[in-house]
Amino acid sequence: MSKQRFIDLFDELADDLKQILLDYKMPEAAVDWFHKNLYYNTPGGKLNRGLSVIDTYAILNNTTADKLSDEEYKKVAVLGWAIELLQAYFLVADDIMDQSKTRRSHPCWYLVEGVGNIAINDSFMLEGALYMLLKKYFREEPYYVHLLELFHDVTFQTELGQLLDLVTADEEVVDLDKFSLDKHSFIVIFKTAYYSFYLPVALAMHMAGISKDSDLKQVHDILIPLGEYFQITDDFLDCFGTPEQIGKIGTDIKDNKCSWVVNQALLHVTPEQRKVLDENYGKKDDQSEAVCKQLFKDLGIEKIYYDYEESVTSDLRKKIQSIDESNGLKKEVLTSFLNKVYKRSK
Amino acid sequence: MSKQRFIDLFDELADDLKQILLDYKMPEAAVDWFHKNLYYNTPGGKLNRGLSVIDTYAILNNTTADKLSDEEYKKVAVLGWAIELLQAYFLVADDIMDQSKTRRSHPCWYLVEGVGNIAINDSFMLEGALYMLLKKYFREEPYYVHLLELFHDVTFQTELGQLLDLVTADEEVVDLDKFSLDKHSFIVIFKTAYYSFYLPVALAMHMAGISKDSDLKQVHDILIPLGEYFQITDDFLDCFGTPEQIGKIGTDIKDNKCSWVVNQALLHVTPEQRKVLDENYGKKDDQSEAVCKQLFKDLGIEKIYYDYEESVTSDLRKKIQSIDESNGLKKEVLTSFLNKVYKRSK
Repeated sequence: MSKQRFIDLFDELADDLKQILLDYKMPEAAVDWFHKNLYYNTPGGKLNRGLSVIDTYAILNNTTADKLSDEEYKKVAVLGWAIELLQAYFLVADDIMDQSKTRRSHPCWYLVEGVGNIAINDSFMLEGALYMLLKKYFREEPYYVHLLELFHDVTFQTELGQLLDLVTADEEVVDLDKFSLDKHSFIVIFKTAYYSFYLPVALAMHMAGISKDSDLKQVHDILIPLGEYFQITDDFLDCFGTPEQIGKIGTDIKDNKCSWVVNQALLHVTPEQRKVLDENYGKKDDQSEAVCKQLFKDLGIEKIYYDYEESVTSDLRKKIQSIDESNGLKKEVLTSFLNKVYKRSK
Repeated sequence: MSKQRFIDLFDELADDLKQILLDYKMPEAAVDWFHKNLYYNTPGGKLNRGLSVIDTYAILNNTTADKLSDEEYKKVAVLGWAIELLQAYFLVADDIMDQSKTRRSHPCWYLVEGVGNIAINDSFMLEGALYMLLKKYFREEPYYVHLLELFHDVTFQTELGQLLDLVTADEEVVDLDKFSLDKHSFIVIFKTAYYSFYLPVALAMHMAGISKDSDLKQVHDILIPLGEYFQITDDFLDCFGTPEQIGKIGTDIKDNKCSWVVNQALLHVTPEQRKVLDENYGKKDDQSEAVCKQLFKDLGIEKIYYDYEESVTSDLRKKIQSIDESNGLKKEVLTSFLNKVYKRSK
């Protein structure tokens, strides 16, 4: 229900954006194209990031999302949709760079008939659109410039993560010497944790007026490791989860991904096992993949994961307990995030 | 000399950007990649846009660029380099979308060994970098938020122009019914005039403190038609200029471009000539191209161009004469632009 309220607002925001084009007297064919780009690429996902802006804002105001007035709900939902537009910008481009085939059970945008490389400019426009919405709804607010900086910073961080990922895990040339847990940590924190975990909470804090640097640092220092843990679980499930469980077939081994699993394996292999890994990781065939999976089992990666999970979550719980709430920040913001991530199996 | 002073500053700004990555403890290979991306794609062009921010700022301060102190010069040069970064962002992506081979006499970035589609993320980072520089050098200024909005607005406008261009002039499917002078006007104003003509002046005006809405509107209303005239000349020279004159071989006819020349032709053709145009425009062979060129000559496009040139420049001169300078705006800002564009032959 809450999700439907959020989704319904997208039509209004898409109309706002369309109106900008109409005011410029842009020819109809291009307006229609933009409309299709917006709708094909922005809603349709899980919308976790957008919804968590609203939930966080509600917690900070001692209420729940369903009790927010329509006006207040819409305003905070604009921030949620701004993150979803940012994500759409990344995903449309990532799919071209990774030459992916499907996204959210549909063909990737660049593979849709007639689109092709126009998808690059379309991805630009999804990013551009978010600043048009922020201008319309927030330009009178004293924290407007902070929202803009936050989006700039997090966008650049995400691009840095993507860059390191791209130069580390070349699908053509497999070289496990390029991998390391440090690099893995940088990639997942920059490519995922900042925009998926820190950004929604920081946006809600600005709108709620609870945005001292010290408070932003408190949530940063919890949400960044939490986001890293989230992605490590993703990597773990890609290898050890069943397709029924995770809703897709894991391809990290075949795709030569710089995954947490292979990086843990590299820490623990004997020279003989390393040779096996060199010969089989990143190969496109099922048998090589099976050899890698067996090796990961032999190395006890599963236990290493479960130990890590207990250790990181116990550490995060302690950090959350010691949060200073004196400026209005609420521990509940962080526990609600942790509860969504802890022991998830999909 | 003035150009060299501007170019020399790029090293300092590239170091600023590199320092952000080092502070994040980004692994060396990725820092090196980013450095290469910056240097390959940002300097090396004519730098007209960047330099015109400095010249405009100097005029508004009743001085010349060479008399600006190092500190003041550097600050305004940051705005100049920010435009050059924005342009680099567009060009790296445009070259992929157009499948171009060379840019500024070098292979396009995406064609450099090992780059490929990583160039898409690299283009994102060029845009991201400009906001990092604005933050470092301008965040304490009262007009900081106006700089950010200006870049957001102009970026979105440029993307709209690129979109209309892409959906109007499909290289595969030639359909001259899609063309019109109105569309041509929209494309060149949005894709070129805003970021190349309006943006440099508006940035300099903000920094000079001469930035009332009415003054921004005054320069807008001159620079946008001036930018349109600039691009129309480009289109004209692509067809009627010699390779020696324009430093490249024009390809608009073969590439099915929605150029000013073909749009003028479409206005004046007889049904028979239209048939000839339908059969030859957008074809990749030299003979079809020659047929189109002859047709354009027969239609008197050259005279139409020279008449347009006299009419638009006389109109612009009148507008410049009637500029209200009471808030500190200077007519000279506009005349210096007009003089660079008028009767250029390359």
